[in-house]
Amino acid sequence: MTTATRSRLDIREVGPRDGLQNERPISTEAKLDIIEHLVRAGARRIEATSFVSPRAVPALADAADLAAALPRWPDVRWSALVAGVRGAERAVAAGIVEVDYVVSAADGHSKANVGRTTEQALRLVPQVADVVRQAGGVLEVIVATAWDCPFDGETPPARTRDVVARAIDGGADRLCLADTIGTVTPGRLTALVEAARRIAPGVDVGVHLHNTRGTGLASAYAALLADVTWLDSSIGGLGGCPFAPGASGNIATEELVYMAHDLGLETGFELEELLAAGHRAQEILDISLPSGLLRAGDRTRAPA
Amino acid sequence: MTTATRSRLDIREVGPRDGLQNERPISTEAKLDIIEHLVRAGARRIEATSFVSPRAVPALADAADLAAALPRWPDVRWSALVAGVRGAERAVAAGIVEVDYVVSAADGHSKANVGRTTEQALRLVPQVADVVRQAGGVLEVIVATAWDCPFDGETPPARTRDVVARAIDGGADRLCLADTIGTVTPGRLTALVEAARRIAPGVDVGVHLHNTRGTGLASAYAALLADVTWLDSSIGGLGGCPFAPGASGNIATEELVYMAHDLGLETGFELEELLAAGHRAQEILDISLPSGLLRAGDRTRAPA
Repeated sequence: MTTATRSRLDIREVGPRDGLQNERPISTEAKLDIIEHLVRAGARRIEATSFVSPRAVPALADAADLAAALPRWPDVRWSALVAGVRGAERAVAAGIVEVDYVVSAADGHSKANVGRTTEQALRLVPQVADVVRQAGGVLEVIVATAWDCPFDGETPPARTRDVVARAIDGGADRLCLADTIGTVTPGRLTALVEAARRIAPGVDVGVHLHNTRGTGLASAYAALLADVTWLDSSIGGLGGCPFAPGASGNIATEELVYMAHDLGLETGFELEELLAAGHRAQEILDISLPSGLLRAGDRTRAPA
Repeated sequence: MTTATRSRLDIREVGPRDGLQNERPISTEAKLDIIEHLVRAGARRIEATSFVSPRAVPALADAADLAAALPRWPDVRWSALVAGVRGAERAVAAGIVEVDYVVSAADGHSKANVGRTTEQALRLVPQVADVVRQAGGVLEVIVATAWDCPFDGETPPARTRDVVARAIDGGADRLCLADTIGTVTPGRLTALVEAARRIAPGVDVGVHLHNTRGTGLASAYAALLADVTWLDSSIGGLGGCPFAPGASGNIATEELVYMAHDLGLETGFELEELLAAGHRAQEILDISLPSGLLRAGDRTRAPA
């Protein structure tokens, strides 16, 4: 089991990016308030924003302003999602040098998301890598629709494996396999993680899950067993993808931390502070987040 | 992995019992309508009702009337929950001879649920077993609060193991380990399932999960890996426990089936029919059920 092969789970908080991109825009200060709570709860790796078209994702139009405020937390690793060379240039200019370049393995989602085929998006990897390398940064390729596409149906595994191989050949330092529309289950997850390990031995591989069909934590557990490098999650289960019909929130950070701690894994998070961050995010956004744990509380709390 | 050790997952639908006990009472005909949809979707093992005090659980006061209507589906195995000898007598008199006798491993929940300590509830096992045996039936002991109690906190594992051993000694034919308040995670689940296997070798062991903290499907996946005999679930994630503060719905049958099929396991269910049953249950109860899959639909559907 897990505890035999690892003692720690590395979690990247993606709520400020994947979570907020689908919500009505909130102020940069409100985002920093949420981030402050996340850092207080123990987040040390955060995908802070996207450098994409403000017309496409108006909620993240303040990416450069937000980035300028992040050095107040010097011990946090920040990354930003980009969809092309220009975005990578903007990210590094704003001081975020861990760059997450998204390539959809399915043409349908790729065209809806960035207006390019998978092939066209892959051809940009070396250019994005150059920008990041010159800034002394780290390039992650996020393989979106790694298992299923809302437009094209199941992504042929050979197609996703080819994107993995070409991302590494093009200069990616690490990979993130993304279940963009929340359809993956433990078996298909394990198969692709193992394939990525074979294609790119020694390369860090993360997994990005959505809980659209209730299977998010089950797949996260399978990812742990398959010894992924890290998991993405968002506070409260906030999240979605504006260009993927039927997508909903990421797996909730607090639920993942709850499960990890109960498995004896260290995460660096403090659960009660994380629940406080979730409640704060709900207040700021004035929405009810989908996380069950946020509603029910830790199992150690006194009963109502 | 799973598929190496099994080709099938046996699922018991508990929505008509655990699901409906917490809802405002609906007519016997409305229950039969939901059951009709469940059977059409492939359910062949259903916990139909409880023979308990109608004052305590008014929504299931029609247990005998419901039981009288069940022979119309001759190829379904029915069971009923009971809380004592009188309940077992009523169940077998009504024609339901698979009897699920609940024993809470924690005194706090046991007293709130049935007005007896764990010890007092255990002492009744042989008497309940006699009633069931004389009817040619099968006695299951449901070990409630097997991991955590809403009143007493964590149930000491030695205490739960003792309940398992004494249930078998008292005449139980099979065991169901119940995560009454939805707190368990894969590690503690696996440990108890393995302990139960050692204590009662060859005895069928099922697991009953709630998704209160989002970890239900992850624990179900761990249960599969631990080779449990069956899993309980309820249509749409309907469910709860009126005597366990903070408890919420069971894991959703359709989410479990979705995961199982994607793992290559047979369940006997047809997913689209199961989603139809979930939608029907929502109509009848006039509530929105918590299942994500019920909202999002199967991954193979055409995008919106």
